[in-house]
Amino acid sequence: MTLPDSAMTDLVTPLTEAGSTIELLLRELDRSWPPGVERLQEISRYALIPAGKLLRPLLLVESAQAVGGGGPELVRAALSVEYLHVGSLIHDDVIDGDDVRRGRPSVAARYGVTDAIVAGDALMLGMFAALTDAVEGLPPHRALAAVRVFARAGVDLCRGQALEGELRGDPGCGLDRYLTMTALKTGALFRAACLGGAILGGGSPAQQRAITGYAEHLGLAFQMHDDLLPYTSDPRSTGKSALSDLAAGRPTFPLLLGYAMAPAAGRRELEAALDGTLPPTEALPLVHGLLETTGALDAAREQAAAHAARAKECLAELPAARGAAVLAAVADLSVDRNR
Amino acid sequence: MTLPDSAMTDLVTPLTEAGSTIELLLRELDRSWPPGVERLQEISRYALIPAGKLLRPLLLVESAQAVGGGGPELVRAALSVEYLHVGSLIHDDVIDGDDVRRGRPSVAARYGVTDAIVAGDALMLGMFAALTDAVEGLPPHRALAAVRVFARAGVDLCRGQALEGELRGDPGCGLDRYLTMTALKTGALFRAACLGGAILGGGSPAQQRAITGYAEHLGLAFQMHDDLLPYTSDPRSTGKSALSDLAAGRPTFPLLLGYAMAPAAGRRELEAALDGTLPPTEALPLVHGLLETTGALDAAREQAAAHAARAKECLAELPAARGAAVLAAVADLSVDRNR
Repeated sequence: MTLPDSAMTDLVTPLTEAGSTIELLLRELDRSWPPGVERLQEISRYALIPAGKLLRPLLLVESAQAVGGGGPELVRAALSVEYLHVGSLIHDDVIDGDDVRRGRPSVAARYGVTDAIVAGDALMLGMFAALTDAVEGLPPHRALAAVRVFARAGVDLCRGQALEGELRGDPGCGLDRYLTMTALKTGALFRAACLGGAILGGGSPAQQRAITGYAEHLGLAFQMHDDLLPYTSDPRSTGKSALSDLAAGRPTFPLLLGYAMAPAAGRRELEAALDGTLPPTEALPLVHGLLETTGALDAAREQAAAHAARAKECLAELPAARGAAVLAAVADLSVDRNR
Repeated sequence: MTLPDSAMTDLVTPLTEAGSTIELLLRELDRSWPPGVERLQEISRYALIPAGKLLRPLLLVESAQAVGGGGPELVRAALSVEYLHVGSLIHDDVIDGDDVRRGRPSVAARYGVTDAIVAGDALMLGMFAALTDAVEGLPPHRALAAVRVFARAGVDLCRGQALEGELRGDPGCGLDRYLTMTALKTGALFRAACLGGAILGGGSPAQQRAITGYAEHLGLAFQMHDDLLPYTSDPRSTGKSALSDLAAGRPTFPLLLGYAMAPAAGRRELEAALDGTLPPTEALPLVHGLLETTGALDAAREQAAAHAARAKECLAELPAARGAAVLAAVADLSVDRNR
């Protein structure tokens, strides 16, 4: 979690608190994954450390806090979400043939495809071992409910990946299918982290619903902003090539808006950019220009911001605990970050 | 579960009972996976139906019966083990580049590697969704304990796969490492199916230990016999090519025994057969002859039978419920089958 350039004073305290949660998560992560003699453990450690933003574990801990729960077991339970997330990223990189992840060789590039598939499996399955171990002291019905939430989220994540594959190459696939895909591929884990945290923290059904609403809007805001990054940020800070979405034929949010807003000639350009007719390096300036002139980039930014705002509105139903302030700050940051 | 040619009378009743459990499992499997519009569901159905032997779900149901438990929720819970198993087979076929599974195109061959990776993930993760849904009516601490057992087994399965990769090509890797690998790659799911059944069925700690002992010996007997099949059975009935183990450089049980029993010249032949120096078609008759003359095949058969016998001995500690008789029959069949 990096402080945005325009650090707002009302964000400083929650961000400090988020920072201290992340410190706890990092310490626990390092403790849980010592350098190992077994190859699979070495690969898992490589994939997990140095850590990414740890956004999903942060959401779990702060959601538990937001309903008045918390404790060291929540930090351990929270890391399990990261295992599922990282396991799925390892498989994503195998599928996309991506050699780079977080500025270093991907697991597939470093250890080969075979070990990448097995290590991804081990992390995804290990999620449930880590979760059940972490929550041993909590009431078993809560722990079991959290397991159910994460298992369903894992399946939804896969459904989202499969749907993404079907939409590939088609800028005219329609916003509805994009939103379904995003709710599954990105939203499911955000939702599970927040709802899982609220369940483990002992939140009431109404609080669980409020947290779920927050998470669903946050997921959309996050992904919409993520889709914008290649057009608005320096690739050195995003860590991903501006061309990779086009090369993979991904119908991202601004492209879909641009397709809806463009005249027929523009639509044909977008089709050629996504179906591989135009090489990505030629396509990028054309697409970028089109997204500017049609106003698609501005529209995408506005919609992302609207979802972040609606995410924050959902928090009104929570007790004024520290967690809610951190969750609000995360919603602000989700659409105000350059990586 | 096929009746062996030499059907022993004392097996007939338990086998009929096993058969009726398998009928229930098949019906529930078909009900749980209707033909779907979503691609991922279609792929999952293709991978699961027609079903394999359903040995692991059978073990779960009968282990629950053997400690006096049972009920329709056990049948649903039992299928979840099959999801984990089949998900891991889908990934195995991606890793090994195998185009055939159970006599039909593998998922990777039929739907491509990308969808095979995602479908395998979905089945493995879906296991925990199916399990937690199935056991909703049972005491939550039992359900949670079963989740923990399966999650750890899933990780062990991956550790076994990684270890198998390390042993590849080396007939001198040693029996200890083979046994460790087998306990992880095959034994872990057998153990989880049996222990999970005993936990869900409300077995006492002593009964859980007895069932675990049974499962561990059964896993070894089963894998040792499986390793023998290419040398003792018609490939049309095993469904796998006699050459595939050699082509993959797998140090299987009879090969390891043969390596320990062979003179220096024989060892060099085995090394050449596994490290790819000799093409598999040339290697097979040499290896087969060596395993015969050294007595390795007989020794492997004896050890498999000894583990099956020890598995049955563990059952003595269970109440004389019908489940135990089925489990004993499964142990007999584990070393008396041609597929």
